[in-house]
Amino acid sequence: MGSMPSPQPLVLPPGTDAAHFDAYIKRATTIVGAENVTVITGDSGSNNNEHSSLSKSSYLDPAKAHDMFHVFDKDYFVASVVVAPRKVAEVQAVMRLCNEFAIPVWPFSAGRNVGYGGAAPRVPGSVGLDVGRNMNRVLDVDVRNACCLVEPGVTYTDLYNHLVENGLDDKLWVDVPDLGGGSVLGNCIERGVGYTPYGDHFMMHCGMEVVLPNGELIRTGMGAMPNPTSSSSAATPDEEPGNRCWQLFNYGFGPYHDGIFSQSNYGVVVKMGMWLMPNPGGYQPYLITFERDDDLPQIVEIIRELRLAMVLQNVPSIRHILLDAAVLGTKKSYKDVDRPLTEEELVEIQHQLGLGRWNFYGALYGPAVVRDALWQAVKASFGRIAGARFFWPEEGKTSPGVLDIRAKTLRGVPTVDELAWVDWLPNGAHLFFSPIAEITGEAAGLQYAVTRRRVLDAGFDFFGTFTIGMREMHHIVCLVFDREDPAQRERALRLIRTLIDDCAKYGWGEYRTHLALMDQIADTYSWNDHALLKLSERLKDAVDPNGILAPGKNGVWPSNYNKAEWKLTAESSVKRKS
Amino acid sequence: MGSMPSPQPLVLPPGTDAAHFDAYIKRATTIVGAENVTVITGDSGSNNNEHSSLSKSSYLDPAKAHDMFHVFDKDYFVASVVVAPRKVAEVQAVMRLCNEFAIPVWPFSAGRNVGYGGAAPRVPGSVGLDVGRNMNRVLDVDVRNACCLVEPGVTYTDLYNHLVENGLDDKLWVDVPDLGGGSVLGNCIERGVGYTPYGDHFMMHCGMEVVLPNGELIRTGMGAMPNPTSSSSAATPDEEPGNRCWQLFNYGFGPYHDGIFSQSNYGVVVKMGMWLMPNPGGYQPYLITFERDDDLPQIVEIIRELRLAMVLQNVPSIRHILLDAAVLGTKKSYKDVDRPLTEEELVEIQHQLGLGRWNFYGALYGPAVVRDALWQAVKASFGRIAGARFFWPEEGKTSPGVLDIRAKTLRGVPTVDELAWVDWLPNGAHLFFSPIAEITGEAAGLQYAVTRRRVLDAGFDFFGTFTIGMREMHHIVCLVFDREDPAQRERALRLIRTLIDDCAKYGWGEYRTHLALMDQIADTYSWNDHALLKLSERLKDAVDPNGILAPGKNGVWPSNYNKAEWKLTAESSVKRKS
Repeated sequence: MGSMPSPQPLVLPPGTDAAHFDAYIKRATTIVGAENVTVITGDSGSNNNEHSSLSKSSYLDPAKAHDMFHVFDKDYFVASVVVAPRKVAEVQAVMRLCNEFAIPVWPFSAGRNVGYGGAAPRVPGSVGLDVGRNMNRVLDVDVRNACCLVEPGVTYTDLYNHLVENGLDDKLWVDVPDLGGGSVLGNCIERGVGYTPYGDHFMMHCGMEVVLPNGELIRTGMGAMPNPTSSSSAATPDEEPGNRCWQLFNYGFGPYHDGIFSQSNYGVVVKMGMWLMPNPGGYQPYLITFERDDDLPQIVEIIRELRLAMVLQNVPSIRHILLDAAVLGTKKSYKDVDRPLTEEELVEIQHQLGLGRWNFYGALYGPAVVRDALWQAVKASFGRIAGARFFWPEEGKTSPGVLDIRAKTLRGVPTVDELAWVDWLPNGAHLFFSPIAEITGEAAGLQYAVTRRRVLDAGFDFFGTFTIGMREMHHIVCLVFDREDPAQRERALRLIRTLIDDCAKYGWGEYRTHLALMDQIADTYSWNDHALLKLSERLKDAVDPNGILAPGKNGVWPSNYNKAEWKLTAESSVKRKS
Repeated sequence: MGSMPSPQPLVLPPGTDAAHFDAYIKRATTIVGAENVTVITGDSGSNNNEHSSLSKSSYLDPAKAHDMFHVFDKDYFVASVVVAPRKVAEVQAVMRLCNEFAIPVWPFSAGRNVGYGGAAPRVPGSVGLDVGRNMNRVLDVDVRNACCLVEPGVTYTDLYNHLVENGLDDKLWVDVPDLGGGSVLGNCIERGVGYTPYGDHFMMHCGMEVVLPNGELIRTGMGAMPNPTSSSSAATPDEEPGNRCWQLFNYGFGPYHDGIFSQSNYGVVVKMGMWLMPNPGGYQPYLITFERDDDLPQIVEIIRELRLAMVLQNVPSIRHILLDAAVLGTKKSYKDVDRPLTEEELVEIQHQLGLGRWNFYGALYGPAVVRDALWQAVKASFGRIAGARFFWPEEGKTSPGVLDIRAKTLRGVPTVDELAWVDWLPNGAHLFFSPIAEITGEAAGLQYAVTRRRVLDAGFDFFGTFTIGMREMHHIVCLVFDREDPAQRERALRLIRTLIDDCAKYGWGEYRTHLALMDQIADTYSWNDHALLKLSERLKDAVDPNGILAPGKNGVWPSNYNKAEWKLTAESSVKRKS
């Protein structure tokens, strides 16, 4: 770069003038190299062409400074520059630099946090810290102990391919979410879920290496115990081999820290261990379809009983017909109307696709004798619901498509096929509204009624899925909108804001959300005058006194930001361009 | 109390004179009532008679100011006063009072943290905060969702009895540790383990209510979301009904805090949710005995394979012959010698008891068809070891006693029978040395050899047990000594200090420890210049700026304590009486 001034970014970091930014860029370049510093100008990063391209291509090659599914103007949530360290020591150096320059920094891994903001920062003009581009090695697969250690850039597809290439995919299974392109580490620390018995990713992680906001480096759990073999030739601590129990025992000794590095802004996770699922010795995916809208409560009551009894061994899901329909075609391909589909039209689509109003995708794991016993129990229980039909993929009784996709996902084979439902509308983008519910028919029925009413009133089609955890369901309502239509974006945003408030009145909280909604949701977790949020803020100031790391992430602001001033309203969506 | 001066305690809090202490006592009394304030004088709390009584009676009626199994002088680790709040608001008031008076406070629940210090504080003269005596209600058992909410004083026995009394014990099982008298909440936050499929207690907890050191009250996870029904008549926030997902979904939104309230001094946990295990529909405990000392590596190799494959569904354990022998009799009853038993004597005891050198206690859970399939796999695998013998309790082929006790424990029925092994020696007390190991034959064999050698060299008998988690083993070495014999206490202390250092050289760390050893163990978790401990200390200062809550717990000292000065050495065991 020499003494050439850097290009002007679309948005400068807050409180930063062009000269200060330029000085920062020069210093950052000396750390990571010019090829790893990309200033985001009006025509770099995410350009208009990319934005009108198909969802699939923008997912696979996301513009890592913007939200690919923007509900605000596409240049609202945008980084000033993307910096991609090549190794841990460079992440540490960048953190120190951001402290020195008082510039906020927003880390991301694969940048595919779709429906929640992608790679974009909460504070416009933040430095986008791309820890995935260069740091993308599978550092270890421990076959004997069924676990691995990965860097942030390793996607589900990468990890799966690594197993295949090493002839281990039959021995060890990965738990994958709906889309295989996301970061294994990133999904886990955002507390995403998959669908096998290892579906609770955070529960199944083991051991982290974290760069703190001040640039210090820690290893959690047993990682804090030096390995006898590590008094080695490693140039820096992060290159030392980990303690042999680092990926085997989470808790270590003393306070167990890992949780505060999830959904937080207390550190940049640069290595993480994950447990892999040993091949269970047999696998049978299945689909059960249910005809009527109001079968839902009974389905959920049965699920709870079977899940608690471990007859349902994994994280199954019940999907609304339109979610499956959208995977298989655009709205126009079914019905060319500019209004929500009617009850009759839904029935028509059910018949056309040979699916139910609700479609339950599950799987049996284990040797034949175990699978048979479980399948008998599953059939007997769900068979009590009139009209329930049972399918296995190989029987070919259903449309190809969704069950075939789910058969892969439930087996831990990554795909990106599910991304297709975003194209339900032209220029399709989506927001996820994700409240947590009890696994009871009553809760499911009520939550479905409350959310569906609002979605239809806003002029959208309802589609959603209930993903069943150990004792709760993630109800994922998918709000698809045309991201090139400002009026539709505004409607979608108002809708989700309304849904958040509605559900809070019932005591339902969201588990994860889009950048634009973090403050609103944090605000609903208000018990005892927001005592928990206040604790989060106190911890934030302790680990990040200059407030440089991801300010505002999930509603946690450092004290050097005026929280009230940064609050976004429905009207914020186009303003604050500077 | 009026204006009467309070009695003088055996030990005053550090930096506190009699007048200041007296003023504190008066204020504490106005908060919790005189009947809940007990100054610990030379003849109160734990008197000499109690100390020479049987282990069982002192366990069931522990002296809640002392370590009942003291390895230092019995009056070394001792509280100045025990204060027992009647409700959460009083816990908050006591915390504020301790800040005002700059007096350290050490919380405990049932006070039965045996082998690790019981109810005694790390800093002599701390206020013992007995949150179990009055706060001991089972607040809720949610049968439908298989979980409960308990206060700190609820023991495993209490919880089990509560289920029995409500006719629920056949529906819902509790996971219990070896001894049923401990606090469900206390064991969980110390990250204790049990033996059913729900054996990882911390993994199976869900939701906490915590008083922070400054007296503020938080609820974690979904507990931070107000319940719509909670705009009720509750006088204080803690009396509000919890959010209906508080015991169903751990993570909530934003940073997940629970881990930092385990094994820590960041807050006093006053309510906790636990998942209960639904009756699995069938149960079969078993014992497999192995003849030879050097069968251990092969046993462990088989265990890893079966555990990862979920053929072993629970947390089984492999026990050394002497642990079982000690449950069934004193050392004298086998051999009246004042030296470690020899190899030949161990063989003799094996034959006498009809047990193996290693005894593996496991169980099968589920309907008959599943149990049968699993049992075939278990028998086939372990049958490869020459001399392996298989027992079910009802067959009566083994001594009554240990298998019958384990049959209860593995079914979640609490007992205190295992306490008997402490009486191996007269005035028996014990320390636990608890390193974490990989589940490999190599690690088990090496760790056994290293630790056994030191134990024998110190003149004690080796007994221990390997408790198998998901991907690691807790190796619990039980160091039994005569607590009335100062020379033996000193030997035991030197031994465990040596073991800690030995194991650290191999990269093995302990998961939990006695008060006297916390600093030494914290010091072994030293990766990257103790970076993790430094983070723990920074968090400590943020949540507890006056350093009043459990200073030194697990090696985490607030900055107003001079850590070096508080470090205990082998020579500290009798000094610092003031």
